[in-house]
Amino acid sequence: MSTSKPLQLDEFLKQCRRRVDQRLGVALEIEIASATLLEAIRYACLGGGKRIRPVLAYGGALAVGGELAAADNAAAAIELIHSYSLVHDDLPAMDNDDLRRGKPSVHKAFDEATAILVGDALQSMAFQIISADPVTQKNALGANNRLAMVQLLSQAAGATGMVGGQSLDFEAVGLKLNIQQLEQMHSLKTGALIRCAVLLGSLSCESTSDSQMTALAAYADNIGLAFQVQDDILDVVGDTSQLGKPQGSDRDKNKPTYVSVLGLDEAKALANSLSDKAIAALQKFPANADPLRELATFLVSRWH
Amino acid sequence: MSTSKPLQLDEFLKQCRRRVDQRLGVALEIEIASATLLEAIRYACLGGGKRIRPVLAYGGALAVGGELAAADNAAAAIELIHSYSLVHDDLPAMDNDDLRRGKPSVHKAFDEATAILVGDALQSMAFQIISADPVTQKNALGANNRLAMVQLLSQAAGATGMVGGQSLDFEAVGLKLNIQQLEQMHSLKTGALIRCAVLLGSLSCESTSDSQMTALAAYADNIGLAFQVQDDILDVVGDTSQLGKPQGSDRDKNKPTYVSVLGLDEAKALANSLSDKAIAALQKFPANADPLRELATFLVSRWH
Repeated sequence: MSTSKPLQLDEFLKQCRRRVDQRLGVALEIEIASATLLEAIRYACLGGGKRIRPVLAYGGALAVGGELAAADNAAAAIELIHSYSLVHDDLPAMDNDDLRRGKPSVHKAFDEATAILVGDALQSMAFQIISADPVTQKNALGANNRLAMVQLLSQAAGATGMVGGQSLDFEAVGLKLNIQQLEQMHSLKTGALIRCAVLLGSLSCESTSDSQMTALAAYADNIGLAFQVQDDILDVVGDTSQLGKPQGSDRDKNKPTYVSVLGLDEAKALANSLSDKAIAALQKFPANADPLRELATFLVSRWH
Repeated sequence: MSTSKPLQLDEFLKQCRRRVDQRLGVALEIEIASATLLEAIRYACLGGGKRIRPVLAYGGALAVGGELAAADNAAAAIELIHSYSLVHDDLPAMDNDDLRRGKPSVHKAFDEATAILVGDALQSMAFQIISADPVTQKNALGANNRLAMVQLLSQAAGATGMVGGQSLDFEAVGLKLNIQQLEQMHSLKTGALIRCAVLLGSLSCESTSDSQMTALAAYADNIGLAFQVQDDILDVVGDTSQLGKPQGSDRDKNKPTYVSVLGLDEAKALANSLSDKAIAALQKFPANADPLRELATFLVSRWH
């Protein structure tokens, strides 16, 4: 199946993935005493993945007139948080998923203790990178912006964001949620980090205004939900080889999804409407924001 | 048995515990959507504990002429990292300890998934607090010092510090380590955070010099090891009711300890010698550093 990406977006995605993989590669060239831990950390981070959150960080930087290079730390940090959450999510006591990104999850490739430690280490590393001086002198970023990034990332990752959403998700297994409860869960579980990705990217540019950040947050909140609705759709209509996880795996766990609550057709309509709202939120931005606009369309038309 | 604390130190310890408990209490008055998660987070953090790391942070602040109030965020952040590490350490896949601080560990009082999420949330919260403006305007702290704190804390907590040491510890079960290997493991597993505690405290004062920080790091490295040696001694000679965990639990797990490597008498001599070196590292500091000096003596004479 075609992914219906315009060629320009495709080039942007490739460029972003190259950049963040490069930055992560440098971050993971660390010397640590435990060889197993380092191998498992690299296994967890460097094994592909869509890198959607880094792409959003780079898109946020471009939208406010920033440079891609200035957003490397933001992109890498947000991907480290995402990677850690996947490693912990896959644990037997959590979602108990043996497969991730088409290969054995960390606790299968190594063991549970290592998977717990890998996630813990990746979270620390995210805060180390986001608070660090950008790698190139040219892209030096003031201390206040970097502190604001630490604040945003810690709030988005923790109990008031992603982890809080995961706890709600866990509590929701077997329950019948209404659409508002489902939205609250997802806006925390995946939405908080997606919003954070765009905002961290924009903060990598010193001149970003509050009104720009408000508009970018609105964009991000809409595509965050759109992304989740599309995930739920793909869990029903996608196929396992493209998803990198068993098709129907959420349904099998008796988790409430947008498709189970709304039905397939209404879920598709919701995804498209959210994508439109995301694009509308960017109306005051110049052509620099086109990658974010194209991404909003792409996210609801993707097949994996 | 007497803990042989001088009365002055006892008062200092009480004051520090009051302060950090107060600061943690404020930090945990958050509104989050998952009631279970919040309850478990509070259970993990507010259930007592020796609060040694916060005490070291406050001691570090005083030693460089700072105020206790300015070190509240540092003290709370370091305790949050310590608390998260205990919650994850106790998990069945890790040390599988059912008892912590005299009550059921988080995964026993709640469940494993909640314990994983609690640890993850506490780590995020630590970075949120350490990067925040201090609560009182009077103790405002410049952005550069706060960024330096985030850097130190992330390095001490992650793969290059505590988590790296935990991984080494895990790999060492059943192995016969020599004294150097044992020291490397502990200097990462517990030493990195203890060093970080003293340094974060000193960074809560704007005027701290590099040479002061070097001396404080030497102090901390020595008491960090002394603390561990004493822990190993207590695992052999202490009793369960005072330890808050079963006496002999490390020995039972076939983990190498200072007592198993050196024997009891030589381990006691090592603890005392490390304590003396810690005090010697503070020779250029005025009486402000007395709490740190007294603490070095106390840590190797404590019974729990």
